[in-house]
Amino acid sequence: MAQQIPESLEGLTIAVLGGTGPQGRGLGRRFAAAGLPVVIGSRAADRAEQTAEDLAAATGGTVTGAANEDAAAAGDVVVVAVPYDGHAALLKEVAPALAGKVVVDCVNALGFDKQGAYALPVPEGSAAQQAELLLPDSTVVGAFHHVSAVLLEDPEVTSVDTDVLVLGDVREATTLVQDLAATIPGVRGIYGGRLRNAFQVEALTANLISVNRRYKAHAGLRVTDV
Amino acid sequence: MAQQIPESLEGLTIAVLGGTGPQGRGLGRRFAAAGLPVVIGSRAADRAEQTAEDLAAATGGTVTGAANEDAAAAGDVVVVAVPYDGHAALLKEVAPALAGKVVVDCVNALGFDKQGAYALPVPEGSAAQQAELLLPDSTVVGAFHHVSAVLLEDPEVTSVDTDVLVLGDVREATTLVQDLAATIPGVRGIYGGRLRNAFQVEALTANLISVNRRYKAHAGLRVTDV
Repeated sequence: MAQQIPESLEGLTIAVLGGTGPQGRGLGRRFAAAGLPVVIGSRAADRAEQTAEDLAAATGGTVTGAANEDAAAAGDVVVVAVPYDGHAALLKEVAPALAGKVVVDCVNALGFDKQGAYALPVPEGSAAQQAELLLPDSTVVGAFHHVSAVLLEDPEVTSVDTDVLVLGDVREATTLVQDLAATIPGVRGIYGGRLRNAFQVEALTANLISVNRRYKAHAGLRVTDV
Repeated sequence: MAQQIPESLEGLTIAVLGGTGPQGRGLGRRFAAAGLPVVIGSRAADRAEQTAEDLAAATGGTVTGAANEDAAAAGDVVVVAVPYDGHAALLKEVAPALAGKVVVDCVNALGFDKQGAYALPVPEGSAAQQAELLLPDSTVVGAFHHVSAVLLEDPEVTSVDTDVLVLGDVREATTLVQDLAATIPGVRGIYGGRLRNAFQVEALTANLISVNRRYKAHAGLRVTDV
């Protein structure tokens, strides 16, 4: 499917589905602070509107809120930051609104027990590949899996010390999402391979949770020699 | 199985099975340069002896060579750096010699095609968990998956800019292997979670290969906020 991928972020609206959760809210905050128009999506429109109001006040940016499907329709680039639980169901629902767009999947399929976090198997290979299958008319990119929501949401954190691995099969789309990552101060967007190699990037979040526990940290990753 | 884990590297001999391949040879070189006695193991004793001679001359360290089984017997800590292909067969063969020891598995199960590297599924969950199953009398730790063999082998590289994620279920063993990683100048050994979370760390090597291709780099990873 031929699809027009924007060459730059200029003039683009970023929608964040699941934007009232910590990860989505944190990303929305940073994108808004960078001057990008942001639409927060949530299952309940009123919760999305409340979060949007808070983020607009905190950042001075342009942030609105809507139900996920309306947010999906309003965004030029759409970030999916919902729990893995509701991932497939949401994407099926909003697929028509996402047609022709770059969809950025941040979802980590994780389980938790007494020993901490662990990676859940994903039948499609990875959450990003699940999205790819469910959104045949969109261009799916995986990114933002490892960025600490705590750091994103902390107004005192002026620079976030991590790189974002960006995965995808369409170069123009991964480049655009690398640019999106780089709007967060301190962050570099680094191309990290094709979607077929997304699982391990998603699952590595379990390891970072182990690191955080052991070292009382908000760990991130930097790619060296790049 | 109760097992005595050494509290420090002092007086320990490090064996490297598959020590004539780039990764094993690079690790052996760095351990020898750090003053640790090293035994290089290979299928063919004479090839191991040749590599050992080269490494001893290059580092001024104590390096000997032997067939894998003899190297396994000679090591106090045994690093497994063989291709995934021969991993299970080798471990079955040397299991008795590894009993009671800390075994450090560095193996990445990767496939390669025109589009680059990709992670192979491992029936046991990961190469490290495969080792754990085959070595019920050893303590298995996963580590050194991401360290560039090119950098390890380059005598001009005086400091290797990467952290080593160390995975395992026995704290004394992961601590010892963190110390082993830290003998390589520039490297920190960072606890990275339990063995059940080893797969994604092993598989992430495919992504680093993609990074290396795209950026013409020898990429490594640093864990931030630790």
